[in-house]
Amino acid sequence: MNALEELAETLSRLPGIGKKSATRLAYYVLNTESTYAKTLANELSTLHSKIIKCSECGAYTETDPCHICSNNLRERNVICVVEQPQDVETIEASHEYHGLFHVLGGVISPLDGIGPDQLSFSKLLERVKNGGITEVIIATNPTVEGDTTALYLQKILAETGVEVSRLASGLPVGGDLEYADRLTLARSFRGRIRL
Amino acid sequence: MNALEELAETLSRLPGIGKKSATRLAYYVLNTESTYAKTLANELSTLHSKIIKCSECGAYTETDPCHICSNNLRERNVICVVEQPQDVETIEASHEYHGLFHVLGGVISPLDGIGPDQLSFSKLLERVKNGGITEVIIATNPTVEGDTTALYLQKILAETGVEVSRLASGLPVGGDLEYADRLTLARSFRGRIRL
Repeated sequence: MNALEELAETLSRLPGIGKKSATRLAYYVLNTESTYAKTLANELSTLHSKIIKCSECGAYTETDPCHICSNNLRERNVICVVEQPQDVETIEASHEYHGLFHVLGGVISPLDGIGPDQLSFSKLLERVKNGGITEVIIATNPTVEGDTTALYLQKILAETGVEVSRLASGLPVGGDLEYADRLTLARSFRGRIRL
Repeated sequence: MNALEELAETLSRLPGIGKKSATRLAYYVLNTESTYAKTLANELSTLHSKIIKCSECGAYTETDPCHICSNNLRERNVICVVEQPQDVETIEASHEYHGLFHVLGGVISPLDGIGPDQLSFSKLLERVKNGGITEVIIATNPTVEGDTTALYLQKILAETGVEVSRLASGLPVGGDLEYADRLTLARSFRGRIRL
């Protein structure tokens, strides 16, 4: 296996990149000026040392605490709980939410051997108890595991007296009833809003 | 822009990778053990020094001459002319051809300012004149530029007396007449084979 095939092999381990696209990408890199490969190589090799997890919320950041936790202009009485660090960026991009975040680092999934102890629930409880939090918004994915995790969160947060809410689940905007699956449709009925 | 966004930005310059997939890939790399990023970085940074062009045929190789040019079991009287180095691998994968190759490095394309002088025609002529070549198979793409280049090749090879052929163009195997474009259909009529 030569260097080109090795690169293609390594690239094919990326999600959504098959053997054929990986080969195409490897050839592209080889056909492009070598500065591109050097830049990419440099960014990849320093990524893990540059990007750390915020000790407060668990989001990816270059500085600790992150720019959200250290920003006094954010609404500091609301915490939005998400599964993964990348979910923070997704919600930030919507410009709809201006409070703080808390990254669980996953969801409760007994089949994968992930119980509450592997996730940052205790840190969340600590944050809620310590400082003027009035609402926790649960933004776990609308999946079986996400629902289980939301239920668990609701239970452990009950004692703190904080308001707990969950993101609405239903028909996606611009979607079509015809293409909605049964479960989504069921949820949109149960969560219907009186006009 | 932090290190994660910079990596996503660099990845999005790859063909077929949009802003969104690039971000997803960057997060994947960050979420995976750092050895993966190091391996990929290392392979990228050494790629251009490890992979060179064969001085004989122009294919990508780690050794010069390449494993095809230096293989005495290949049919050394036939040369298959292709546009790009990666075309060699594509043809090799078909296990249909057992001769030598010649990489032009592109096609004649006046609009892009690429004339015969920028491509390795003279080296091909030299190879044909020097050593026992009886047939040249033109495997440029069935495009306007590929056709122009094939025509030009046919003209300059005429004086050498070597047999010149071109890969058949027509309906792809497993395809459907209904989805064939007009030009492909026209070619398959003109190139029809008497049974």
